[in-house]
Amino acid sequence: LIATERPSGPPCLEFWFEFGSNYSYFSVMRIEELARRSGVAIAWKPFLLGPIFRDLGWSSSPFVLQPEKGRYVWRDMEREALKYGLQFRKPSEFPRVAVLPMRVALLGSGQPWMGAFCREVMRQNWVDDLDINDPGNVRRALTGLTPEPEAVMEEAQSAANKMRLRDQTAEARKRGIFGAPTFFFNDEMFWGNDRLEDAIAFAQAARPE
Amino acid sequence: LIATERPSGPPCLEFWFEFGSNYSYFSVMRIEELARRSGVAIAWKPFLLGPIFRDLGWSSSPFVLQPEKGRYVWRDMEREALKYGLQFRKPSEFPRVAVLPMRVALLGSGQPWMGAFCREVMRQNWVDDLDINDPGNVRRALTGLTPEPEAVMEEAQSAANKMRLRDQTAEARKRGIFGAPTFFFNDEMFWGNDRLEDAIAFAQAARPE
Repeated sequence: LIATERPSGPPCLEFWFEFGSNYSYFSVMRIEELARRSGVAIAWKPFLLGPIFRDLGWSSSPFVLQPEKGRYVWRDMEREALKYGLQFRKPSEFPRVAVLPMRVALLGSGQPWMGAFCREVMRQNWVDDLDINDPGNVRRALTGLTPEPEAVMEEAQSAANKMRLRDQTAEARKRGIFGAPTFFFNDEMFWGNDRLEDAIAFAQAARPE
Repeated sequence: LIATERPSGPPCLEFWFEFGSNYSYFSVMRIEELARRSGVAIAWKPFLLGPIFRDLGWSSSPFVLQPEKGRYVWRDMEREALKYGLQFRKPSEFPRVAVLPMRVALLGSGQPWMGAFCREVMRQNWVDDLDINDPGNVRRALTGLTPEPEAVMEEAQSAANKMRLRDQTAEARKRGIFGAPTFFFNDEMFWGNDRLEDAIAFAQAARPE
């Protein structure tokens, strides 16, 4: 069962993520099950990390700009994947452009297929080493999840939806987001996959009796 | 009981830390008890983070240089302190110069008073908001732990010991350390207080049957 959002229902945790972000991979794979078990709803908030990094004065990911940290991070990813029981292969390209799947994800927020779609895109990037911005791969990730994948693909590329992704990215910047994944419960911000459990516990504690 | 190092005894985890580093605070407070319970020995490795940051092209802590991350980190520290049952007050100065207590800590590595001394210096910085580079405060942190605190203070300031701290910092750089706390089990590197449990488990798994 996939939990759907109910505005006046369970406490709702915002999940800001990027398909190109390596630590977002673990959170995308884990969040739906964790949130379901805790009675917390998820508001999926895809945004583009590139413009945020550029705004902060970085031309790329810190894991590219800082070679020491970069070397460390790929080993950390291997160990963390093992800990979570997830597959992981270092992609041949990092960070990958993810604009098209991010646009689809924007349409998917609140749809029952959102979690499964996001996990499939992440698997393409972090397990199968595929170009996740390729329309064929995005279409394959949607296949079987929605009766009209082609309509979703088309709407994803509409001018209005492109603008929505730019707006959501601007909102991320305004909220003080500097990396991904980031979780918000109201104004309470949690940064990084390492804080996913804490963020869910925080939201759960706010649940009405 | 304080575990002492035995070269051919239990597996030994290197603990690289800085008194001025906020996330080192949590690891210093937690590591001795965690390691004891896991049958892992600790090799305390004090080093200066400032020269490492400067080498990496940063004029100060990333939490100072990146205002967004800085704002976040102090809230994260409050929440983490609550999680660990530790006190925390944001210091009026950050990052604090810690050269003198680091020099004392260098002498303390392998001494039975090391853990208690480090925890007291950390409490001065992160709870009592005191100048941890002040000789009076360093002396107070040593009081009751060693019969001759004054001799330790003097040796700490010797030319040979000053050079040892520079050498240990250079070794940190050579090992690829880019932040604190950092843990090593042989060549396996773990960065950040969030990885302390993983680092200990990794070392524990290497224990001979």
